[in-house]
Amino acid sequence: MVNIIMHGCGGKMGHVVADLVKNDPDCQIVAGIDPTVPALDFPVFASPAECTVDADVIIDFSTATAVPALLDFAKEKQIPVVVCTTALSDETQAKLEETSKSVAVLKSANMSIGVNLLLDLVQRAAQILYDANFDIEVVEKHHNQKIDAPSGTAMALADAINTAMDEKFHYVYDRSQKREKRERTEIGIHAIRGGNIVGEHDVIFAGRDEVITLSHHASSREVFAVGAVKAAKFLAEQPVGLYSMKEVLA
Amino acid sequence: MVNIIMHGCGGKMGHVVADLVKNDPDCQIVAGIDPTVPALDFPVFASPAECTVDADVIIDFSTATAVPALLDFAKEKQIPVVVCTTALSDETQAKLEETSKSVAVLKSANMSIGVNLLLDLVQRAAQILYDANFDIEVVEKHHNQKIDAPSGTAMALADAINTAMDEKFHYVYDRSQKREKRERTEIGIHAIRGGNIVGEHDVIFAGRDEVITLSHHASSREVFAVGAVKAAKFLAEQPVGLYSMKEVLA
Amino acid sequence: MVNIIMHGCGGKMGHVVADLVKNDPDCQIVAGIDPTVPALDFPVFASPAECTVDADVIIDFSTATAVPALLDFAKEKQIPVVVCTTALSDETQAKLEETSKSVAVLKSANMSIGVNLLLDLVQRAAQILYDANFDIEVVEKHHNQKIDAPSGTAMALADAINTAMDEKFHYVYDRSQKREKRERTEIGIHAIRGGNIVGEHDVIFAGRDEVITLSHHASSREVFAVGAVKAAKFLAEQPVGLYSMKEVLA
Amino acid sequence: MVNIIMHGCGGKMGHVVADLVKNDPDCQIVAGIDPTVPALDFPVFASPAECTVDADVIIDFSTATAVPALLDFAKEKQIPVVVCTTALSDETQAKLEETSKSVAVLKSANMSIGVNLLLDLVQRAAQILYDANFDIEVVEKHHNQKIDAPSGTAMALADAINTAMDEKFHYVYDRSQKREKRERTEIGIHAIRGGNIVGEHDVIFAGRDEVITLSHHASSREVFAVGAVKAAKFLAEQPVGLYSMKEVLA
Repeated sequence: MVNIIMHGCGGKMGHVVADLVKNDPDCQIVAGIDPTVPALDFPVFASPAECTVDADVIIDFSTATAVPALLDFAKEKQIPVVVCTTALSDETQAKLEETSKSVAVLKSANMSIGVNLLLDLVQRAAQILYDANFDIEVVEKHHNQKIDAPSGTAMALADAINTAMDEKFHYVYDRSQKREKRERTEIGIHAIRGGNIVGEHDVIFAGRDEVITLSHHASSREVFAVGAVKAAKFLAEQPVGLYSMKEVLA
Repeated sequence: MVNIIMHGCGGKMGHVVADLVKNDPDCQIVAGIDPTVPALDFPVFASPAECTVDADVIIDFSTATAVPALLDFAKEKQIPVVVCTTALSDETQAKLEETSKSVAVLKSANMSIGVNLLLDLVQRAAQILYDANFDIEVVEKHHNQKIDAPSGTAMALADAINTAMDEKFHYVYDRSQKREKRERTEIGIHAIRGGNIVGEHDVIFAGRDEVITLSHHASSREVFAVGAVKAAKFLAEQPVGLYSMKEVLA
Repeated sequence: MVNIIMHGCGGKMGHVVADLVKNDPDCQIVAGIDPTVPALDFPVFASPAECTVDADVIIDFSTATAVPALLDFAKEKQIPVVVCTTALSDETQAKLEETSKSVAVLKSANMSIGVNLLLDLVQRAAQILYDANFDIEVVEKHHNQKIDAPSGTAMALADAINTAMDEKFHYVYDRSQKREKRERTEIGIHAIRGGNIVGEHDVIFAGRDEVITLSHHASSREVFAVGAVKAAKFLAEQPVGLYSMKEVLA
Repeated sequence: MVNIIMHGCGGKMGHVVADLVKNDPDCQIVAGIDPTVPALDFPVFASPAECTVDADVIIDFSTATAVPALLDFAKEKQIPVVVCTTALSDETQAKLEETSKSVAVLKSANMSIGVNLLLDLVQRAAQILYDANFDIEVVEKHHNQKIDAPSGTAMALADAINTAMDEKFHYVYDRSQKREKRERTEIGIHAIRGGNIVGEHDVIFAGRDEVITLSHHASSREVFAVGAVKAAKFLAEQPVGLYSMKEVLA
């Protein structure tokens, strides 16, 4: 039985994680941390500093400003932590990496199992297809309330390909302002916005007379909770270090 | 039997049109015009001025600079003309419109039957869905040698929607440089480039929990020839005026 | 203000309709009917016979066996009724048609605005494309708990095309047992099942070197509630007769 | 420089291979074999028995009945052979395997680089996703003249998944005749037919709130020639044995 502290238990994703864990015989939430201190099935503390419960792992779905204090807590109590909060500042990201020298820390751009599999498949595909003269493009679709573009996951997909291919690519976001043929070393990245689309990502490999497309479509944010719980079970047993979903799926 | 003059009979599309017509019992090519004067199954002349054969209609797949002399010929001989050459200058476009006051002229951004049907369907869809709070985006894919972006057909699709909706939309080509929610009156237009993709266009209507996508995929430029022949048969019987594929499909 | 009776107010769709109406200034629920008699914001009755509240229209999301008694109630009280319950028996369907001679009744295979627009677009497309030698196929995707196949909406799409084209098509569900070329008058209908997919429908028109695909993807059943409320507002003002979503969107 | 004998040099694929090789500085065709003995840029023989030219490798795009004599020739002359002809009889397939004990023989269900990459990716995906409760379905689209269904490539994709997963799956081609929930161990395989579609294959992994789709679209049969030449260069240097495109891409 893996004992979990849920950081951000009062938020939407905190509730989704709690619901999932309730039906999972292999883990349980033993405490929550949230400044709103909601009444839940487990003891809830207003901040990490006030939390007196021990656990095997922490799952974090909070806000970027709440993460530093949590990292201090994880280091002090020696509890591995799965950080699912996104849009961390450079300082917090640096602190996270520093903390991972003292306790196991897992951080991924996207927590879903499907997206993390895709990150692996696009690397494999790029290695085979680039030499066969295929061009690579990334298309993402999200709801009309999203203020950033392209999505962090689209960038992660492009970066994964770039890492696997000796950083030979540069990214292109707009072709309407020039009249030029596409270069081999471009990755075009396109951000479509509309309705309440949860998140769709296509990676397109277009060659001579054949096109391979690897796609992920999410229909709810619950997919991140499923991945977070899977990651928590994995991380609870890991030594000090910085981890990503890649190791969880391996 | 519709008698056709093929302007640009030495080019790739000229040959495709000739092949199609050979298997069509309702029409025949009675002459060709092309500066290279290739040896073909029908008499070929180096320029419109030299052409002595009469016909019911002209199909043009040539180059933008060859179109003005053809328009003069069509007007003088009173032969309706289907202009399939793209990227006409503003001057030539104006001359084309002037010519249509003396003889039937047909001009469309895209000659395929499928794309022209799509132009009609997206107008119908926009009229129903915009009021139901759907957002509209256009995505096009073409080969890596294409130098302009977005494609003329993508722009025609957006323009068709805008015309049907009182010009309330503005177009967005790049969202990576701002951090803002999407506005209701945006149409995002995205140009994907890769391999030797002939031409794909998706018009996406994204609403609350439902998405409608209307797509056209062309796998060869022959679709333009099929549309051109269909248009020629139609135009041969029309009075003076400016026509598009819209009237052909009506 | 349109006053609505919600038949099946204790079910999942009943709750979704109630939530939607709560945020709609133009209509309100004045009573509910449900054998479980849940405690809600409005008076709830165990059966139509016990309902003493008057209204402008009834929305029904119940079970096939509960519909006949509701039709009697609608006829007696002269309240138009939007029947969203599916899988009605032939007897109930006949009774519904009979009832529509005394009071306005609306029934559609699928209540979403998007699907009903698609029903219209596929008819238009078939009329243009069949003569141009395009073949038509329907593909639907639903969750792995669905026991019937193909979906009612897939059949409705095929039927709409068939109605528009003089019933010239027959339907094919399996090509693995024969070795024959496709006939012009086939519509292939394919049922994909997996995960918890809410509902996706593609209608494919495949011609020579071009393919048009008209698609609808639903990501929650809420789309049916949106359509039902829109239909209710429409039907409240209609005379005796049998209606479908087609008239609502016209 | 790899010297190639082209078996079936008078057929459509033979010509495509010859065109490709002409522009490839690393290989050349030194002889052709074809019963029609067409006049080409290289010496052509009516049958393997008459061929007096030596070579490093043979590429075969002929007919199923011509393959046995070619296998005898390859074995006798000790020339590796890439067999691209499909629909071999069980006897010819057995002979091919027997021949591979004496000389290198390569045979794949589909010669395109893209499809063979897909065969690899779907195995990787199935291994990760099946345990996470994803369902797997295969959808293929081909032209309306194809008489067999599903396509050999669709079957090869399903078989690749089945092989990687301990043969736990059975295949389902038609769900219209039963009323049952989908089983975990089904792979649904769907054959869409229309127009002149060259070949499209989608492998769908549908889980809880997320769907991964891996797709391959071919727009001409030339993709098979590209793969065949790549395979020939590889096979020319291999020892005795039975090979597939899997080893070529490794």
